[in-house]
Amino acid sequence: MKVASLKHGRDGRLVVVSNDLAWCADATHIAPTLQAALDDWDRVLPDLRNLQTDLDHEVIPRIRFHEHDAAAPLPRAYQWADGSAYVNHVALVRQARSAEMPESFWHDPLMYQGGSDGFLGPRDGIPLADEAWGCDLEAEVVVVTGDVPQGASREQALDAILLVGLTNDVSLRNLIPGELAKGFGFFQSKPASAFSPVFVTPDALGDWWRDGKLHRKLMVDLNGQPFGRAEAGEDMTFDFGTLIAHAARTRKLGAGTIIGSGTVSNRDADGGPGKPIADGGVGYSCLAEVRTVETILRGKAETPFLKKGDTVRIWAEDDKHHPIFGVIEQTVE
Amino acid sequence: MKVASLKHGRDGRLVVVSNDLAWCADATHIAPTLQAALDDWDRVLPDLRNLQTDLDHEVIPRIRFHEHDAAAPLPRAYQWADGSAYVNHVALVRQARSAEMPESFWHDPLMYQGGSDGFLGPRDGIPLADEAWGCDLEAEVVVVTGDVPQGASREQALDAILLVGLTNDVSLRNLIPGELAKGFGFFQSKPASAFSPVFVTPDALGDWWRDGKLHRKLMVDLNGQPFGRAEAGEDMTFDFGTLIAHAARTRKLGAGTIIGSGTVSNRDADGGPGKPIADGGVGYSCLAEVRTVETILRGKAETPFLKKGDTVRIWAEDDKHHPIFGVIEQTVE
Repeated sequence: MKVASLKHGRDGRLVVVSNDLAWCADATHIAPTLQAALDDWDRVLPDLRNLQTDLDHEVIPRIRFHEHDAAAPLPRAYQWADGSAYVNHVALVRQARSAEMPESFWHDPLMYQGGSDGFLGPRDGIPLADEAWGCDLEAEVVVVTGDVPQGASREQALDAILLVGLTNDVSLRNLIPGELAKGFGFFQSKPASAFSPVFVTPDALGDWWRDGKLHRKLMVDLNGQPFGRAEAGEDMTFDFGTLIAHAARTRKLGAGTIIGSGTVSNRDADGGPGKPIADGGVGYSCLAEVRTVETILRGKAETPFLKKGDTVRIWAEDDKHHPIFGVIEQTVE
Repeated sequence: MKVASLKHGRDGRLVVVSNDLAWCADATHIAPTLQAALDDWDRVLPDLRNLQTDLDHEVIPRIRFHEHDAAAPLPRAYQWADGSAYVNHVALVRQARSAEMPESFWHDPLMYQGGSDGFLGPRDGIPLADEAWGCDLEAEVVVVTGDVPQGASREQALDAILLVGLTNDVSLRNLIPGELAKGFGFFQSKPASAFSPVFVTPDALGDWWRDGKLHRKLMVDLNGQPFGRAEAGEDMTFDFGTLIAHAARTRKLGAGTIIGSGTVSNRDADGGPGKPIADGGVGYSCLAEVRTVETILRGKAETPFLKKGDTVRIWAEDDKHHPIFGVIEQTVE
């Protein structure tokens, strides 16, 4: 099943979306918003599934689904916690600034608490007040959980995954060193993230969803050029079950919690840093990584951060090259 | 005006509460929850104020207000961001571990993004799975904002403060060094916080609310003994306007954002670390601070962290010694 929220008020209007993303059906008689549905998932899920079946069979009124009418599926959420599961990415960034990466990073997940009071829709502009802040994209996979008890095991955590989607976790790179030096984590350096138009239940992903990972390429274009084609199912040191269990170690998690994978990143075939797509590599899912590789190879970063007018496109495809979750496409404003 | 949320479902039922906290009136015909009221504050505030007037005049049905029936006023929120405005506290903690405190801490606020997907009610137990985690209380002042535009000035930020209250920001001290060393801020070390039964509009605080600070003593008892009597209006290096403007520097803040002051802490009269109440001082608002002072004075911390069965009581009083926001009273479970 695929769900989305059409732009409306603070929380959107819940719709179910056809598998090909061409059509949708109003679901507000079942639950007015996606959060309301998540709060009562076991009760409303059968009704939402029936609605999807009726939509697929064209036996109910349906409306065209336009991705630019979609808000983030959760336009605001009670929790957004972002992991850093592709440890390869972390190791590279550290290497570029000649900082040692603790060995523990390979078995103890990194995770930060993100702001969740307002997310960007998939076609919303990225509001950037100052280019000197060093605006970057970060293409990631996300999951939405139901209620997760404190101390949940990885298996319990995997069972609590209700929806899967994508995010552009916008980051202000030049504000990060100062904030991390203060020791309290990210705040000003992490403005609102954008999410894919559609979130999808794990069962609807079939074999693409297994072992708590999305086994599809994460496609990233920058200003119309291929920039990233990393395989989200590879080099993910911590699967989503492990990330959720980490988040729930000392407290329960509320329904509608969004957990992010961190920037998707693949090692190169020879084990070194990934190559650009133009050089036969799988490219990158954020600018910081290509800048890191440039620093390692040639002594300095050459690719600039995002400027006004730059466009970012993030999606994942089915075998017929149709977007699974719709497309995040944003212009810096 | 004073508002509270009676325990009911995930978001409680909105009530207005009499000034003496003895009575309340159902407000769900105006807005079902406090979040719904905050989403539409300008429209609903006159109705809520009329309800309070009717309650005070006893012209509507009223029910006894029992603080143990209250959830946190926002049982879950879209944002909880906690500052560290009493820089004296930070300086002391650093001094105890012989760490230099950067001079910038006196003019650039520290703030972390907290988890907001589920808060504890004022009489809920503190669920602690492992005493070795080093459970601490942190008594703080909080404000709730309306919508705050990106780049808001301190003055705009002050105007956006809709409600004032108290929190017990539970911290797991022994998990903090490991998390901060990883560089991504707090996560497992900050389980659910508890909030005062009642939040109060700034105008209802009169002269106690000025310059973006609450000018009342923050009362803290530990196991029935006076532990803290610090003056919240003193030694607050950053007022709430400055804290909110800091949070809104790179992104707007959504209605219902909760901003915390950080642990309230006063210098001693001679400028040194504060003394215990038994020694004529104003005491402390968290165990870490008394342990820090013990370390500075006698080489090691003596006061233990919270154990099962310990009780914490946090409140502020009017001139007749009646609680203004009700009382947070929690037992470690």
